[in-house]
Amino acid sequence: MGSLNKSVDRIVEILNDKHKILVVTHVYPDGDALGSQLALGAILESLGKEVFFYSEQKVSHLYDFMPGNERLQTSLPDLAVIEAVIALDCGDRFRLGCEMDRLLRVSPFIVIDHHVGHKAFGDLRWVEAGRSSTAEMVYDLGVAMGADISPAAAYCLYTAIVSDTGSFKYDSTTAHTFRVAAELVAKGVAPSEVAEKLFDNYTKNRLALLVAVLSTLELHADEQIAVISVTRQMFAETGAAQGDTEDIINYPRALHSVKVAAFIKETPDEQIAVSLRAKGACDVAEIALGFGGGGHRNAAGFRQANRTVADVREDLLRVLRERV
Amino acid sequence: MGSLNKSVDRIVEILNDKHKILVVTHVYPDGDALGSQLALGAILESLGKEVFFYSEQKVSHLYDFMPGNERLQTSLPDLAVIEAVIALDCGDRFRLGCEMDRLLRVSPFIVIDHHVGHKAFGDLRWVEAGRSSTAEMVYDLGVAMGADISPAAAYCLYTAIVSDTGSFKYDSTTAHTFRVAAELVAKGVAPSEVAEKLFDNYTKNRLALLVAVLSTLELHADEQIAVISVTRQMFAETGAAQGDTEDIINYPRALHSVKVAAFIKETPDEQIAVSLRAKGACDVAEIALGFGGGGHRNAAGFRQANRTVADVREDLLRVLRERV
Repeated sequence: MGSLNKSVDRIVEILNDKHKILVVTHVYPDGDALGSQLALGAILESLGKEVFFYSEQKVSHLYDFMPGNERLQTSLPDLAVIEAVIALDCGDRFRLGCEMDRLLRVSPFIVIDHHVGHKAFGDLRWVEAGRSSTAEMVYDLGVAMGADISPAAAYCLYTAIVSDTGSFKYDSTTAHTFRVAAELVAKGVAPSEVAEKLFDNYTKNRLALLVAVLSTLELHADEQIAVISVTRQMFAETGAAQGDTEDIINYPRALHSVKVAAFIKETPDEQIAVSLRAKGACDVAEIALGFGGGGHRNAAGFRQANRTVADVREDLLRVLRERV
Repeated sequence: MGSLNKSVDRIVEILNDKHKILVVTHVYPDGDALGSQLALGAILESLGKEVFFYSEQKVSHLYDFMPGNERLQTSLPDLAVIEAVIALDCGDRFRLGCEMDRLLRVSPFIVIDHHVGHKAFGDLRWVEAGRSSTAEMVYDLGVAMGADISPAAAYCLYTAIVSDTGSFKYDSTTAHTFRVAAELVAKGVAPSEVAEKLFDNYTKNRLALLVAVLSTLELHADEQIAVISVTRQMFAETGAAQGDTEDIINYPRALHSVKVAAFIKETPDEQIAVSLRAKGACDVAEIALGFGGGGHRNAAGFRQANRTVADVREDLLRVLRERV
């Protein structure tokens, strides 16, 4: 493989010279963060480095099947011996967590990330917002370093890519993403096994919450606007957790006629949180901005205090009706 | 690209010599059947052939976004002028539909299929049960014929692969599947667009049926057995169609604790149809066989006449409790 770009060349050059390396990622690591971290660690170890893994949080049970996750430490190693830090999938220094200041004092501090709107930090950055996942970049780095990607590292990288692309469904999925997936599967990863681990892990409480929330569906403006909501009572009755609402907005969004979907949520801290999703021309970032929030064109949100679901619903519908 | 195998070499050799070619697939074509048919037709046309497309049914609204679907005819062309027929994704001659006898009189009759348990028919067969989709094979055939796959053909093939692998989640997804996907995406297919067309096409009736059916969920034997059901009344109340039940069994199957999921359905012809899905060791084909049905180890089913949902549920639970 030829040179990817100067940042990668420089990272390879630096890492070749360093022995004790600390690999970190963002707080509350998701599949891409954790998979990239574990895989890069394994790659560096295969090249004879001594690798330290740090995470502010323990591994979520959603990802505890990833090989090597038991290596993660929730306390920092002695930073005096660390020769380089690599931060993965971290779009902003504050996402490094409470040890941010101590970590950033280590030099070189290398950053590899794919977030749109990445806010530069560290000494040396390789940031590509067009990439499907940080894991795709870690794979390329491994190849650039001449490493032989182990089956365990391949499993972590593949899982990370599937996790960050919704199984190859999101915008950022490219021909290169598929080429990397092909190489990883050729190393023995079973796609169906990873899919089962990532997607077949519902609890009955989460399923009960899904039913309760979808029962609130209302359609407006010739079925172009969909609104669903969740109350604290529903959480109490189903025993579901806050995180169990995560993908529910995709159901009203998937309705053929729907252009904008809104999910109005009572939060534990007595606020109202609203998620908005758009298909096509409608810009929900602009709508969210009008309510003091923000986001992307197709996915945005806002929060309001001292309001009820009914009040927010009414205000929101008034604005949405003007936009579709 | 080198020779794939002798069947492919022979198919290429024969097609090189033929000009008027009829491309058919199975009745009630799914995404893989239709995508393979349209793409192979486009490939043959790019090589100067005259291509005829036949389907017993009109294209389902689920797939009417596929480029070229307007070329499908629901009546056969004059078979006297046809020099070769190619049947795609058809595991059994009877799946050719009501024109089976007339079609099979044409020679050569070429069969390309990936179904497990394919029942041989036609003059020349290329059958590989390990393939993710017939579309993956059609891509290889196109390459073997030296065709330049057009963007429209690439779109059909990619859609077919995504459709038949559940977006790269099923067992049959291989490194080669990803390599083919990479080539197709490199030709301009946008994965997120195809995913939206295939998966974001719910009707509100289908969503209402999903909620009604999931509300029937029962868990038994330490939550290892899940049972859901649908009645004719639910179809009437939600306005949903029979096909709208298609993926609902995946919800109870996705529960972490569940080893077997059963979906008991009242059919329009007053039978009880049961779908079974297993994770892990439980063999539902064997269970279905005991009820006069059949299927695969992880996906099977059976039908019974003159029974009620309650009766079938009771019989089934008795057997399932012994197996988990």
